Amino acid sequence: MIWRDIQQIRKTAPLVHNITNYVVMNTTANALLAIGASPVMAHALEEVEEMISLAGALVINIGTLSPAWVEAMVKAGKEAQRRKIPVVLDPVGSGATKYRTDTALMLIREIKPAMIRGNASEIKSLLRSELGTKGVDSRHVPAEVLGEAKALSRSAGCVVSVSGPEDLIVEGDNVVRVSNGHPMMSKVTGMGCTASAITGAFVAVNPSPFKAAAHAMAVMGIAGEMAAGRSAGPGSFQMNFLDILSCIQESDITQRFKIQGL
Amino acid sequence: MIWRDIQQIRKTAPLVHNITNYVVMNTTANALLAIGASPVMAHALEEVEEMISLAGALVINIGTLSPAWVEAMVKAGKEAQRRKIPVVLDPVGSGATKYRTDTALMLIREIKPAMIRGNASEIKSLLRSELGTKGVDSRHVPAEVLGEAKALSRSAGCVVSVSGPEDLIVEGDNVVRVSNGHPMMSKVTGMGCTASAITGAFVAVNPSPFKAAAHAMAVMGIAGEMAAGRSAGPGSFQMNFLDILSCIQESDITQRFKIQGL
Amino acid sequence: MIWRDIQQIRKTAPLVHNITNYVVMNTTANALLAIGASPVMAHALEEVEEMISLAGALVINIGTLSPAWVEAMVKAGKEAQRRKIPVVLDPVGSGATKYRTDTALMLIREIKPAMIRGNASEIKSLLRSELGTKGVDSRHVPAEVLGEAKALSRSAGCVVSVSGPEDLIVEGDNVVRVSNGHPMMSKVTGMGCTASAITGAFVAVNPSPFKAAAHAMAVMGIAGEMAAGRSAGPGSFQMNFLDILSCIQESDITQRFKIQGL
Repeated sequence: MIWRDIQQIRKTAPLVHNITNYVVMNTTANALLAIGASPVMAHALEEVEEMISLAGALVINIGTLSPAWVEAMVKAGKEAQRRKIPVVLDPVGSGATKYRTDTALMLIREIKPAMIRGNASEIKSLLRSELGTKGVDSRHVPAEVLGEAKALSRSAGCVVSVSGPEDLIVEGDNVVRVSNGHPMMSKVTGMGCTASAITGAFVAVNPSPFKAAAHAMAVMGIAGEMAAGRSAGPGSFQMNFLDILSCIQESDITQRFKIQGL
Repeated sequence: MIWRDIQQIRKTAPLVHNITNYVVMNTTANALLAIGASPVMAHALEEVEEMISLAGALVINIGTLSPAWVEAMVKAGKEAQRRKIPVVLDPVGSGATKYRTDTALMLIREIKPAMIRGNASEIKSLLRSELGTKGVDSRHVPAEVLGEAKALSRSAGCVVSVSGPEDLIVEGDNVVRVSNGHPMMSKVTGMGCTASAITGAFVAVNPSPFKAAAHAMAVMGIAGEMAAGRSAGPGSFQMNFLDILSCIQESDITQRFKIQGL
Repeated sequence: MIWRDIQQIRKTAPLVHNITNYVVMNTTANALLAIGASPVMAHALEEVEEMISLAGALVINIGTLSPAWVEAMVKAGKEAQRRKIPVVLDPVGSGATKYRTDTALMLIREIKPAMIRGNASEIKSLLRSELGTKGVDSRHVPAEVLGEAKALSRSAGCVVSVSGPEDLIVEGDNVVRVSNGHPMMSKVTGMGCTASAITGAFVAVNPSPFKAAAHAMAVMGIAGEMAAGRSAGPGSFQMNFLDILSCIQESDITQRFKIQGL
């Protein structure tokens, strides 16, 4: 199933439209190319609706948000909704500032994403609007995160994908756990954003956002493990991660995947 | 001749002023440094005219355009024209949306670039304003692209450089074909943008935009071949490409270049 | 002392808030992660004050400035000043255009940074407001730079850190000289910006901006030497530099550091 999605991505090269943050534009575009998708970055109000009409998925990431960009996210997201093109929302840093939390909540209401992908503290912030997250990274999944992900999935009406040492993919009461991955992934900026972008490629070829999210997180984790195994640090990890994404094979998946619940 | 240009770039380190897209700012700056030029990125209306006065070339790339940036492109481009500083225009994604096509056509009219460098579908879009390109990459050069490049060269009054498995550099009826390059180049984001930036370095030291474009495409292709030969995928390709650009030697050029028509 | 700072950064992972340029957002975030700090990039007027309240240091870098971003720099900088959070200012390209020089001078007046970190021509431009710098890089430290750094330190009332073959860290009449580093560092874009970001991490854990600046420049230079020793060019240098920052050990520091005056 994972492998079928990868083959489909490589065969059809779906266009993934990203309205994302400045920090990761280059690295997420490269990850999408490496897995076989076609990335495009476009945020002008003048073109987002036309661009989304060509795309298989829209990825919205608020990592370096500002009002003009948020306006484009809403416009693109509404057009995606109208065209039934799935939207992946990455609420980067939600909880760190009120502006991020409020924007993420507004986007959920206005755009109705197919999926929200974030770390545990971001997911939590969207549930209870609590502030106090330190910055944009979260290194461990608290024990209570499953309940929070379920609650957010219900309130937002979409799949919730929470990354951490164990990734959780939740749709209502359905839960998939992915235990692939490597600690080195948290030492490279934008690996969460890359997970969201890659999820965009999978959701473009798999009609189930729930399965697409699980497959994407497994591939991220497997490529991360394989890259870490040959890397001396985060610099070489980045390089190896792209190399591996571009040539990952069925046997890599079948030998390594650690998924429960799918 | 190619080698003389490289020596001249390394010796004089021409300042190449880029108004380019967010995705490739880092990678194109690094490519310019690697070949020996001095990159600067500046887009504020408050400074583009003063910055261009220091530069040997201006590279305008619409990959993540928005109205404020387009305004800066026009302002910088007009000042470059006034000062007879050559402008390279990269119409990224022209054809994918009306906004991109219209902006590229407007820039051609207002700025009169010395050169337009794009892929086959971008070039075609500027000729007939046809829409329907899927995204921003184009993997094969259609048979009719030569005619389209000639027509654009005539209508725009400038050199047209079309990248593809075989690069075409066209000025009116004069045609150069460059057959260097490697398929892995299409798996790294921004290699076309890098070609435009590198072309900026060559046009800063060579008074003939036609020859500068051909030399730049040959060096891109040769460095791409050499990098691909030692790379396991797009991650290591990026790294090796920069390493090779920085230490490419005359013998690499003379042994590998595949240019017809120059 | 250097080693104690590194340990402290790794242990406490201070949040370093960056309002920086598009070119280096990815690479400076990765350098901060590699040394052990937590980077965040945020520039919206709606959130900069709240974000800075979570941070241990603020790094302001004008490399791709525009009025909206400058407004955010002032707002964040004033809040940092109010909260006694140290600010590192990197006046990228000051001297190249009047807009950059004027903005840097205004930021110094309005924000009162704890430290200004730039190259020799940028520092000089802030002293005499002379124009004529070619672009944003400066390859050698003129003999008179020490006097200029001292004058700027006095007029701005802060530490001045000047990078070059020999780095100078100046506070009034106190001077530290750091002779670590490698010429390959000038062939990678944003190494100066990375020095400023890393300085932000050190100033977040060391109460003396003067010592923090010296330690940061020494670590930059040592990591640069070690990376250059195993790199074929600027591409592999970038990768190795991050790998080394992430696993640099006490013995690397004690065996290599070349600091005078501390």
